[in-house]
Amino acid sequence: MGAVQMGIANAVGSLASVPVRDILITDFYMVETVSFPSNGSQVTPAHNFGDFRFQTFAPIAFRYFRKLFNIETADFLHSICFEPLQELSNPGASGSIFYVTSDERFIIKTVQHNEADFLQSLLPSYFMNLKQNPLTLLPKFFGFFCYQVSLGKNIRLIVMNNLLPQSVSMHEKYDLKGSTYKRYASRSEKAKACPTLKDLDFVKKYHEGFYLEADKYESLIKTLERDCLVLQSCKIMDYSLLVGVHRVESSDVNADDDCNEGACSSANELTKRRRSRFWDLDGVFPARNHKGQELVLFLGVIDILQKYRFFKKFEHTWKSILYKADTVSVHNPSFYADRFMRFMKEHVFHSCRTFLPHYSPNTSANTTLFLKAQKKKIERLFAPERKPYEIETGECFSTGETVIRISKEKVALSTQEIMPDEVDESSLENIEFDQVKFR
Amino acid sequence: MGAVQMGIANAVGSLASVPVRDILITDFYMVETVSFPSNGSQVTPAHNFGDFRFQTFAPIAFRYFRKLFNIETADFLHSICFEPLQELSNPGASGSIFYVTSDERFIIKTVQHNEADFLQSLLPSYFMNLKQNPLTLLPKFFGFFCYQVSLGKNIRLIVMNNLLPQSVSMHEKYDLKGSTYKRYASRSEKAKACPTLKDLDFVKKYHEGFYLEADKYESLIKTLERDCLVLQSCKIMDYSLLVGVHRVESSDVNADDDCNEGACSSANELTKRRRSRFWDLDGVFPARNHKGQELVLFLGVIDILQKYRFFKKFEHTWKSILYKADTVSVHNPSFYADRFMRFMKEHVFHSCRTFLPHYSPNTSANTTLFLKAQKKKIERLFAPERKPYEIETGECFSTGETVIRISKEKVALSTQEIMPDEVDESSLENIEFDQVKFR
Repeated sequence: MGAVQMGIANAVGSLASVPVRDILITDFYMVETVSFPSNGSQVTPAHNFGDFRFQTFAPIAFRYFRKLFNIETADFLHSICFEPLQELSNPGASGSIFYVTSDERFIIKTVQHNEADFLQSLLPSYFMNLKQNPLTLLPKFFGFFCYQVSLGKNIRLIVMNNLLPQSVSMHEKYDLKGSTYKRYASRSEKAKACPTLKDLDFVKKYHEGFYLEADKYESLIKTLERDCLVLQSCKIMDYSLLVGVHRVESSDVNADDDCNEGACSSANELTKRRRSRFWDLDGVFPARNHKGQELVLFLGVIDILQKYRFFKKFEHTWKSILYKADTVSVHNPSFYADRFMRFMKEHVFHSCRTFLPHYSPNTSANTTLFLKAQKKKIERLFAPERKPYEIETGECFSTGETVIRISKEKVALSTQEIMPDEVDESSLENIEFDQVKFR
Repeated sequence: MGAVQMGIANAVGSLASVPVRDILITDFYMVETVSFPSNGSQVTPAHNFGDFRFQTFAPIAFRYFRKLFNIETADFLHSICFEPLQELSNPGASGSIFYVTSDERFIIKTVQHNEADFLQSLLPSYFMNLKQNPLTLLPKFFGFFCYQVSLGKNIRLIVMNNLLPQSVSMHEKYDLKGSTYKRYASRSEKAKACPTLKDLDFVKKYHEGFYLEADKYESLIKTLERDCLVLQSCKIMDYSLLVGVHRVESSDVNADDDCNEGACSSANELTKRRRSRFWDLDGVFPARNHKGQELVLFLGVIDILQKYRFFKKFEHTWKSILYKADTVSVHNPSFYADRFMRFMKEHVFHSCRTFLPHYSPNTSANTTLFLKAQKKKIERLFAPERKPYEIETGECFSTGETVIRISKEKVALSTQEIMPDEVDESSLENIEFDQVKFR
């Protein structure tokens, strides 16, 4: 990778002399080629990698994207070019090779010729999505290069964001497509330390999916829908949502419960630092599982350089003879996007109206909020002039300890403050209720 | 135009049922066709215009543009479809016919087949410019339609912004290309009530061009440069800057000098209303001429649907044999853009560091700012710890009465408050000074 690092350093470094300006549609189709003779040239250093040529695709456009993604050129060069790259041992099904930078910010991925061509044709749509859908979960492309050795072999490389920083312990990892056909991870995959599991593994483990705060949920679903619309319009299929699940350990959140002031503040500091590092990243969402356990989700749409082409069509025809067409993962792009979103909304993400504060008898708080369910007619305990806090059946509330799902009838709630000692522990169970009243 | 109004009303109205979403690259190439039989159909009313078909180009994209330009659909429909349109008597050289809506907000212009095709191919670049260069002076395109009568005749129509509202008395009007070849308005044009004058007429009348406040000047030049870059990348040429000049009459600005309180406030109100209506419009810039007279400039780049094609090439070859190539207005797009910008910066717009407040012995203000020039060594009257207000030679200051251009040496100034009775009237002359000191 030394030659590639030299090529990228030269390409990105030489851009410094090109004034920053608006990007034009023609910028997407620019290719710059520089020869790197091993003896060096006027613009390239001498090196030991043998003669090679290095192509940079759409240099001005990717500079614009890097700026949009808040990537400083100096940081980019330092991470990619001046520190060793580590090859990841877990290549995808595509046969691509992945390298990660030592600061874990960037991934360099090798791509096939047709994927590279497709990426270039995709750039206008990619730009349009970035400008309209700034929270997009599509891959962040930071650069696109081709390393040509004298023998005529071309190695095309894409620099992207690293969705799953290795410094965060990822307790689970899922590749979700919304298909259920053969979507179990293989035995050999499951034998790995941190396997990439699939749709059916997910449904088995998280039969209720993840619970997100309402605004986070709305934002996530809207973002995914916008991303899917773009992918569909570009006839892209077979993409996945990569989901990294980090469980927040009780030692993290309760660090202040059993420590003296000094240790406590430094433990808090550590937790804060660790968390703020999470939230600096895009695609990071706080969530809970059905037991109310705190999770941090790392989300991103991956493998978007597949198109619905002849091969895929053929594969679908053949598979759909053998299996129910709906569950096979190769269809037309519109069907694929619809099924993908349906799976996300039905099986993966759910909205909680709010995460209620933790109820803990040991806390110093003298009030807490608490939902009590009773199998009797709903009583409006709040004053009539207060706007009732209306919820629909099927909605979920988390008390921090458990998730309560409201079933059957529309009910109306209000929030009230009650003393911790009024809490009825028996109601903290993961059951469904016909009606809910506020205690 | 009744049929066209019916067609637009149907096209824009029926969009209400299409949910608002991000626009996609495919939206730029969509064409919707609706038949309007004179007996009416399930989706169209009966009418007396004879059978016709109505095509709407890129309906979703233009809806997006209208929203970006803050055009409410109801207002758009009302202006275009439910009020009579007025045909303008002054068609351009292109042979297009122009209609203006009765509220003067919109222009409907007929375009040739090749211009229409070109506009559609231009839309991705147009979108990119809007998202990066929001102050753009390029035409605002609000809709693009084709009226097809049964005989096979197609009338293509573009709805645009109206740069020069007729309710504002436009004292002069210029069409500037940056060329000096035959760029005088014709005699017949000059005989009109408000002729459209050209580059050489402009240079003759405004040998010092317009003076703009520094931030307005910087913004305008930057915007024009960005617009030119886009036009150049799309190989567009022969565009013009349309400049409407409204002189602010002394009766407007001094309305409060000689009136009692009641009349004064209503006159002020009128001026304020009239002005606020100006500033609501894009492309409106306050300026002064070399005498310091207040102007309001209405600016916009027009005629951008010309491409550098075979005919233009031929025209240039032929003309450049006869004339000095630089001054002929048909060249390659890069040359055209450079010459256009050079003309704007050298002949049309200049930066004033600031418009100093009006000096008027009758005002109640007890302080005013005043530059006094003396042909002797500069004296720094300000305290050393105050950062001097540095200016470069060649920069201009307007005192509201006159414009002072600083020549030869770099000088340093500071602002000081002086009493009005200290003002030396003799210095208020339009002359160049070697050095300037602050009195």
